[in-house]
Amino acid sequence: MRLSRRHPRYRSLVVRAGLAQAHRAGLVVGEGLIAHGRGEAFDYLLGERTTAGARRAERAAAEWLLAARRPVVSVNGNVAALAAREVAALARAVPGLRVEVNLFHRTPARARAIAKRLSAAGVPEVLGVRPTARIPGLPSDRALVDRRGIYVADVCLVPLEDGDRAEALRARGARVISIDLNPLSRTSRTADLPVVDEIARAARRRRRRGPPPRLRPFPAATARAQALAEIARRLSRAAGAGSPRRARRPG
Amino acid sequence: MRLSRRHPRYRSLVVRAGLAQAHRAGLVVGEGLIAHGRGEAFDYLLGERTTAGARRAERAAAEWLLAARRPVVSVNGNVAALAAREVAALARAVPGLRVEVNLFHRTPARARAIAKRLSAAGVPEVLGVRPTARIPGLPSDRALVDRRGIYVADVCLVPLEDGDRAEALRARGARVISIDLNPLSRTSRTADLPVVDEIARAARRRRRRGPPPRLRPFPAATARAQALAEIARRLSRAAGAGSPRRARRPG
Repeated sequence: MRLSRRHPRYRSLVVRAGLAQAHRAGLVVGEGLIAHGRGEAFDYLLGERTTAGARRAERAAAEWLLAARRPVVSVNGNVAALAAREVAALARAVPGLRVEVNLFHRTPARARAIAKRLSAAGVPEVLGVRPTARIPGLPSDRALVDRRGIYVADVCLVPLEDGDRAEALRARGARVISIDLNPLSRTSRTADLPVVDEIARAARRRRRRGPPPRLRPFPAATARAQALAEIARRLSRAAGAGSPRRARRPG
Repeated sequence: MRLSRRHPRYRSLVVRAGLAQAHRAGLVVGEGLIAHGRGEAFDYLLGERTTAGARRAERAAAEWLLAARRPVVSVNGNVAALAAREVAALARAVPGLRVEVNLFHRTPARARAIAKRLSAAGVPEVLGVRPTARIPGLPSDRALVDRRGIYVADVCLVPLEDGDRAEALRARGARVISIDLNPLSRTSRTADLPVVDEIARAARRRRRRGPPPRLRPFPAATARAQALAEIARRLSRAAGAGSPRRARRPG
């Protein structure tokens, strides 16, 4: 498909084309494309930029991952398609971080394709291609995990997830960090630390230098309410002006 | 896939599964799935119900279609997948209404599959499978039309469309009725009569009995602003409560 740089939605069209490509390559399922569209809508409403609240959440998330004893990032097809390089950079920045493929719509071929994409992006070891444990109480294939990874995680970063999974992980005592653009989703409402931001932008955020990291409490409900209020504010403004103000974009 | 009726998002999961099925059958492209996700997000924010403003817009749209000399409804893959029966019912209710397949990502096989779905749903004649004219100034395959249909339409109903097309149709002097859940989309902002509602719900709305229909002016900007204000109102409420109030659903 031809994409014109002058198209008002150029950037999101490029991301979309990459995701459609990953879909044809078997990494992303149809349901993942629909989920991406939902995220696009919320990102648009948030101004397609990292809000001040998201920035705070991302710093806290970096601290939690660094302070964790067994930190894990869970990767599905959309994460691999949208942010494989960012996952690799995160694995370099966080000592001991495990990277694990975990899928709702699981096939062995799909799990392998996702692991391959992560390896190509520079992730040294990818768990989850051959699950070795099962999380009780989860009806979907999400339950199939690695006993060195999600099964024993104390802090689990779950970008672009489903609510059932976030709940099952919390029930096991893991702290859940979500990345989800919908502040109202079950995942965002369940997470101990909801990051309401686009995944590639969120994963680029680094922790500031400071005292040794620790798992300090995060005001999750406040963070969600701030994201909602931000959307409501932008919409009220747009209701007068006809279109929400665009964030300036790099480049 | 197993779908549990007790799942909090059961209804949207059923619609989503139907769309994924239509995708596998070749009616819907990957970009169409992403677009559906965007629509889902806005529908969620609007409470998954027809607002009072949308109801007014739908009555006006019915009147415009009945008053038109050459009314046409443009059908793409998502429309055929989500509302083929509703399109057939509309064709029965509006004398002279032409039903035309019009695609951004066009292949002859896809156009045929969509026409077949419409015929199976009861549409007597489907235009657009073999285009016979071209709309000037439109770079995409959207330009390929039928000279008995979109090419000569005075009122064109364009559900789930792209902004370029809506603009090109208006430039030709056609009145454009859009159905799009995003009140900020270029389509909604371009349309003479933007209906901000889910397509199947919108297409079920009938005109009340009354004086002969005519093309009376429609306050498009006001309608868009009302939809935005409605979303903002619900979000402000949710920012306090944690979740927007669900609309009661039939059944």
